[in-house]
Amino acid sequence: MNILDIIANKRDKKELSKEEIDFFVKGYTNGEITDYQAAALIMAIYINGMNDEELFNLTFSMANSGEVLDLSEFGTNVVDKHSTGGVGDKVSIVLLPIIASFGIPVAKMSGRGLGFTGGTIDKLEAIPGYNTAVDIENFKNYVHKIGISIIGQTMNLAPADKKIYALRDTISCVDNIPLIASSIMSKKIAAGANKIVLEVTYGKGAFMKTLEDAKLLAQKMESLGKYAGREVKSVFTPMNEPIGFAVGNSLEIIEAINFLKGKNMPEDLKRIVLEIGSHMIKLAGRGDNIEENKQKMLENINNGLAFNKLKEMVQIQGGDITYLDNIEKFEKAKYIIEVKSDKNGQISEMNAEDIGKLACFLGAGRIKKEDKIDMSVGIVLNKKVNDFVEQDETLATIYANDEEKCKTAVEEIKNIIKI
Amino acid sequence: MNILDIIANKRDKKELSKEEIDFFVKGYTNGEITDYQAAALIMAIYINGMNDEELFNLTFSMANSGEVLDLSEFGTNVVDKHSTGGVGDKVSIVLLPIIASFGIPVAKMSGRGLGFTGGTIDKLEAIPGYNTAVDIENFKNYVHKIGISIIGQTMNLAPADKKIYALRDTISCVDNIPLIASSIMSKKIAAGANKIVLEVTYGKGAFMKTLEDAKLLAQKMESLGKYAGREVKSVFTPMNEPIGFAVGNSLEIIEAINFLKGKNMPEDLKRIVLEIGSHMIKLAGRGDNIEENKQKMLENINNGLAFNKLKEMVQIQGGDITYLDNIEKFEKAKYIIEVKSDKNGQISEMNAEDIGKLACFLGAGRIKKEDKIDMSVGIVLNKKVNDFVEQDETLATIYANDEEKCKTAVEEIKNIIKI
Repeated sequence: MNILDIIANKRDKKELSKEEIDFFVKGYTNGEITDYQAAALIMAIYINGMNDEELFNLTFSMANSGEVLDLSEFGTNVVDKHSTGGVGDKVSIVLLPIIASFGIPVAKMSGRGLGFTGGTIDKLEAIPGYNTAVDIENFKNYVHKIGISIIGQTMNLAPADKKIYALRDTISCVDNIPLIASSIMSKKIAAGANKIVLEVTYGKGAFMKTLEDAKLLAQKMESLGKYAGREVKSVFTPMNEPIGFAVGNSLEIIEAINFLKGKNMPEDLKRIVLEIGSHMIKLAGRGDNIEENKQKMLENINNGLAFNKLKEMVQIQGGDITYLDNIEKFEKAKYIIEVKSDKNGQISEMNAEDIGKLACFLGAGRIKKEDKIDMSVGIVLNKKVNDFVEQDETLATIYANDEEKCKTAVEEIKNIIKI
Repeated sequence: MNILDIIANKRDKKELSKEEIDFFVKGYTNGEITDYQAAALIMAIYINGMNDEELFNLTFSMANSGEVLDLSEFGTNVVDKHSTGGVGDKVSIVLLPIIASFGIPVAKMSGRGLGFTGGTIDKLEAIPGYNTAVDIENFKNYVHKIGISIIGQTMNLAPADKKIYALRDTISCVDNIPLIASSIMSKKIAAGANKIVLEVTYGKGAFMKTLEDAKLLAQKMESLGKYAGREVKSVFTPMNEPIGFAVGNSLEIIEAINFLKGKNMPEDLKRIVLEIGSHMIKLAGRGDNIEENKQKMLENINNGLAFNKLKEMVQIQGGDITYLDNIEKFEKAKYIIEVKSDKNGQISEMNAEDIGKLACFLGAGRIKKEDKIDMSVGIVLNKKVNDFVEQDETLATIYANDEEKCKTAVEEIKNIIKI
């Protein structure tokens, strides 16, 4: 078997065998197959497509290209969630303690942010002392003890997917539903859960521009999940503006803490958390009625169980829980400037990507992998799209540690929030 | 303009503009566009195709990616030939002195061999002293003085084509008629002649496996030539066995010298030389009747004009012409072994590629660019396909400088010549 024949077969619209797909994935992962050969094959796959069996073989091969997390000791109801992510996305931090508060095991490896979207792990590290670099033994111990742990990706999960994804980005092969489905599902399969709720975002701030495309992607992922013996459920979320009001690491953690305390629950964040969570509870066999599940989730917020679960997790991972009880302890940015509206009107648009980039510019995100994050900076919006605003009313607050950057951000945010 | 959009356009079957094609060719030549991006685009071109205008723009852009040889001082009838090459191919060495003997200017840059096909330049260097590394000024002076010069490719002609060709080889994108046509014509346009005879080979030893494909390729090349203001004529040659009898540098030069002296003219070599040459003479405006042109060529062999032209060329480029008068002067290989037939029968096959590789193994060719060539080694066949052979009759003679290799070659050639 050789890569030239494999490329030629897909070039000529032939079906690739499991062996051919494995040969490519292994060879590319270990560097025996070059980037340009992989690029030629990926382009041929993009144009000529793959049938369901080929796509599953690709997915499974990528899932098995590195380590695979074995969570079988936690039973058959380990539930995971995936989201295509977004600006201001603190869904996992809010949702997973709620889920764990029902006694459903949560063992989650989460990623860091790159570019304009932040990562759950970076946000959790805004809590002083919270350790995300936990080895697998301790990670599993935590889940056994308190039913939840969220750590950084300490295992080498699906390295083939990482490499292929990075390549696709440079050869105009990103926006392809089968390849996106395969990429996401390979990571989920390697991450060990047997029940998965997929949040598929659509709209201006997402890969899928329409609900129709989002449904096609969900279909593909669900069928890949079925092939792999995973129960998969999709929910759909429009993504045109940031989730909630806060964008920036400490700022988002504070918003998440307040949410779990039952005060200040942004409507969109609440809707997403309840939607995904109610299906996770159903998949875990704890209730078939989605609306009832949502009510139970709100109960566990109101009775303090969810917040307590967050506190337990923070404590066991070395975080300072006094910050959770008193959010005033979080270090504040040097410059905190309220941006006022120039006029009366209704807000027509707040592009999530632009706001994410602005937060990144202030220091809340990384441009390069090596960049250090400034936890305290960011933006807190005061309005959502469709809200009415009066002249001199606050539109947003800029949190900055650099005076010049603060000034720029104040001007920029006015352009981004379209009235 | 950026390469991601260009890749996406061809991926989506859109027509690429001249500007987009130029952007790719320039960027890839100077290294701004990576191999994997070029690979993705080439695969998209392979699968989705290019219309005639796109293909011409690609060809012209590659032709202009480096230096372009200006032969306008020699008038409008500078005739060039191109052959897709082959094992035992000494056509240029025989043909071009004949053409020059009619006063038609011949200014030819020729390539070195790599892999199993030898290069004209390597073969000419078997003549002691013959200098192929001639600068452009001297090259043109020679053509002004004696009407002919054949030198190595001292100019950087169509570097984009070189780079793209090498890439295609590694991503299963070689056997594509539009890309082959574009590659050949870009080199021919950069090489400066305004009239070109293309010899398109077909069969087991050639890129084009059938005459039908060879005709499609010729059509594409002729239409590209027309676009570029070049008069182009194609001739078709089957390529299943080596051309002539000799394979190896000195051995082929000796065969070429004997041919021009009018003794020992292998039928297939004669047919090819007359076919291409008669059309070159026609394109140069020296005779519309192809059969008459062939007769005139034979006359110029018989009256010694063609051989004299070869001598003039060798002399002006520093070669020792006493070797031409007395071929016994060429250094002989240490081991010269006649291989006899085991049985009576008719020869059914002598795969050109296999014979080329065997000559290469003996030292007649390069595996890597840096390899040094052994001029005296090779194979001289005694038979052609369809010839009858008797037991103990000589099939071929092996010329080797290494005893072990000689033994291997003696065994191998018996397997290659199928009776």
